Amino acid sequence: MTTTVNESTRNGVDTAALFATLNAVKAAPEAARFQFRAHNQWLSGTHNRSTIAEFYGVGEERAHERSFTFDADHPAVLVGRDNGPTPVEFVLHALAACLTAGLANIAAARNIRLTQVRSTITGDIDLNGILGLDPDVRNGYERISVRFTVKGDAPAAKLRELVEQSRARSAVYDVITNRVPVDIEVDTD
Amino acid sequence: MTTTVNESTRNGVDTAALFATLNAVKAAPEAARFQFRAHNQWLSGTHNRSTIAEFYGVGEERAHERSFTFDADHPAVLVGRDNGPTPVEFVLHALAACLTAGLANIAAARNIRLTQVRSTITGDIDLNGILGLDPDVRNGYERISVRFTVKGDAPAAKLRELVEQSRARSAVYDVITNRVPVDIEVDTD
Repeated sequence: MTTTVNESTRNGVDTAALFATLNAVKAAPEAARFQFRAHNQWLSGTHNRSTIAEFYGVGEERAHERSFTFDADHPAVLVGRDNGPTPVEFVLHALAACLTAGLANIAAARNIRLTQVRSTITGDIDLNGILGLDPDVRNGYERISVRFTVKGDAPAAKLRELVEQSRARSAVYDVITNRVPVDIEVDTD
Repeated sequence: MTTTVNESTRNGVDTAALFATLNAVKAAPEAARFQFRAHNQWLSGTHNRSTIAEFYGVGEERAHERSFTFDADHPAVLVGRDNGPTPVEFVLHALAACLTAGLANIAAARNIRLTQVRSTITGDIDLNGILGLDPDVRNGYERISVRFTVKGDAPAAKLRELVEQSRARSAVYDVITNRVPVDIEVDTD
């Protein structure tokens, strides 16, 4: 089978641009300083909405091509109205998305053509923690499990190495498995 | 000013149901074991999509009232096509949503009526980490900052205590500021 895909594009990744970006950051490391942001507004009960629009990077303020909004809520069984997933479910999406994006980039850089990447990610949580009913139970997930199915034109060992390298370079995996300091300020005026 | 709101509903929170749930879990702690899930599918390049639909809790398999789907991507400056926020931006949304939902519940339980809750959450990240260009730079956020504006019918000190208690009982805050073990399995068949 012959394909007519542009040789610099693999898996939908513009590898020429990817390597050009790497070289640009090598030459000017401060270009890699980014700040991401979300703006959240409470609506009612456990229902609230975030807007994600602008960010800072490569030395200047930037904007996504459009503004994204996401609702979060609790399901009825947790005394919400199910207007959106729970906040902890968005954490699972973030992790799956980060590992998958990295995997596609790494596969492209290694000249491996992917045909399918799927994952199911689960998080086990004991709500006795957040309900304040058991001081020995943490508030967050006890554990998170990711199960990938990866198919492409490389041996199984090479496909597994893609996942391993993506894990080793994943921002969200690092956030979840290592700690990030969070400071909170409150304005009541 | 008199309002005709049902006395058991404050801030859109059904406090009677909230306390009934607390009492039910006190009587049967195993009801609080939940498993949340996301299913992710790679689309092209850094663009992928998660579906959040079913979960386990209170002793049985459950489903959200509808299935939610979310796209993630990288912006053009990070060699993506900007079909959605980056994975790390979803982490910020998750944290803001969790702190805000908790705040509304706690305010309702304390009989404080909220009139406004907004937050801006920022995450600083040096992409020299994920780009593999500097071994001393971590992959994830260096720090996250949350700036809340909270208004309601209570003194400023009481409003600040709501945020503090929400932080103390937030699942996502715990995930980010303490570590969660993540295991990854790969199927290539």
